[in-house]
Amino acid sequence: VIRDRILSVLTPDHSLQGRHILVTAGPTVEPLDPVRFLSNHSSGRQGYAIAASLAQRGADVTLVSGPVTIPVPPGVRRIAVQTAREMLTACEAALPADAAICAAAVSDWRAKQPAAGKIKKTADGPPSLELVENPDILATLCRSTRRPSLVVGFAAETDDVLDNALAKRARKGCDWLVANDVRQGVFGATRNTVSLIDESGVQGWPEMDKMHVADRLAERIATFFAGSSS
Amino acid sequence: VIRDRILSVLTPDHSLQGRHILVTAGPTVEPLDPVRFLSNHSSGRQGYAIAASLAQRGADVTLVSGPVTIPVPPGVRRIAVQTAREMLTACEAALPADAAICAAAVSDWRAKQPAAGKIKKTADGPPSLELVENPDILATLCRSTRRPSLVVGFAAETDDVLDNALAKRARKGCDWLVANDVRQGVFGATRNTVSLIDESGVQGWPEMDKMHVADRLAERIATFFAGSSS
Repeated sequence: VIRDRILSVLTPDHSLQGRHILVTAGPTVEPLDPVRFLSNHSSGRQGYAIAASLAQRGADVTLVSGPVTIPVPPGVRRIAVQTAREMLTACEAALPADAAICAAAVSDWRAKQPAAGKIKKTADGPPSLELVENPDILATLCRSTRRPSLVVGFAAETDDVLDNALAKRARKGCDWLVANDVRQGVFGATRNTVSLIDESGVQGWPEMDKMHVADRLAERIATFFAGSSS
Repeated sequence: VIRDRILSVLTPDHSLQGRHILVTAGPTVEPLDPVRFLSNHSSGRQGYAIAASLAQRGADVTLVSGPVTIPVPPGVRRIAVQTAREMLTACEAALPADAAICAAAVSDWRAKQPAAGKIKKTADGPPSLELVENPDILATLCRSTRRPSLVVGFAAETDDVLDNALAKRARKGCDWLVANDVRQGVFGATRNTVSLIDESGVQGWPEMDKMHVADRLAERIATFFAGSSS
């Protein structure tokens, strides 16, 4: 691995030169009031590693990111957002793109009506929290008139991982789907075990560093574009 | 300020030597399922600065902290927790203490029944999220048979800051209450404007660094104990 990385630094890779790639990463944060929010445990590590890997191959990378604590990879343009709706707006503004890699863990729901002031604890008991569905960023990009040639989705699952992922790929209309089982503390970890689903079926990848998952995916994306332009 | 800090480093302060002080800091995180959670925007900065300041004065500091991204101050024993119930358990296990400084932003509510697996998005629309009240850590410490001699609460408010804070002090039974207005982006910021409420009334402090707020509070705590032991 170290040898590979030294070689990759010494031998600049231009396989994605001239390609604009949109990457989403991190969680979204959905306010309930000015103090409280609904979110999820995405650390952004896998998405940031992918953005870094694509940029190393010469791609022009727009990284639309929820709040995370990791630095922006060199050569990547980051657009910071909080909510799913902000993320969708930023993604649509970033089009056209040759590819979109949707690694963010977008909140499926948000509070129907966030309170303008801090919700007070009262004797009446907890407030009832009415949720509404957030826009589906992956599906929206897939159905866009400016759909990128390649759209890659991610599915973090805890149960029936492959079945859920296969169904998600079909439902969303994305080209590839990267599925992972998040039961075993993947959030914030440096390693990941994923399966890649495309039109030909399921490919299970061995457990590896998130950076390595990113390299392998970036390589596959470069191959896709090498094929499509030849 | 710089001169003060240099002097404080050069002249070791032992005014809280032999005192065990419990500090809580950061948000709590309340799971909805293995992926999603309810939390708040507390960065932990003010609580960590207080823990650091007390330790610099020789106190034996137990810092019970929700998930934050700031390092543990030198000489401070940190106990990391996620939920309000874990925080309460850790606080009770840390007793006896001479003082408790409750700077954490404890979630008032949690999901009644967190799901064991990731909640799926269905055609039926968003799940209904039933909340229940969390234990009140500040009030519980105040009513404990092992109540610390000095209990300090915090109130982050967006409306009627002083009225809410005065009512909170009376309701919880704490000795001092530090109130701040969190409308203007205090979360994660380095500066803070607080009021200190005690039995004699309200004292407004000017805007200053959170580290300075911490120093001033630690000094007041040292004065309290100097008075009580003489």
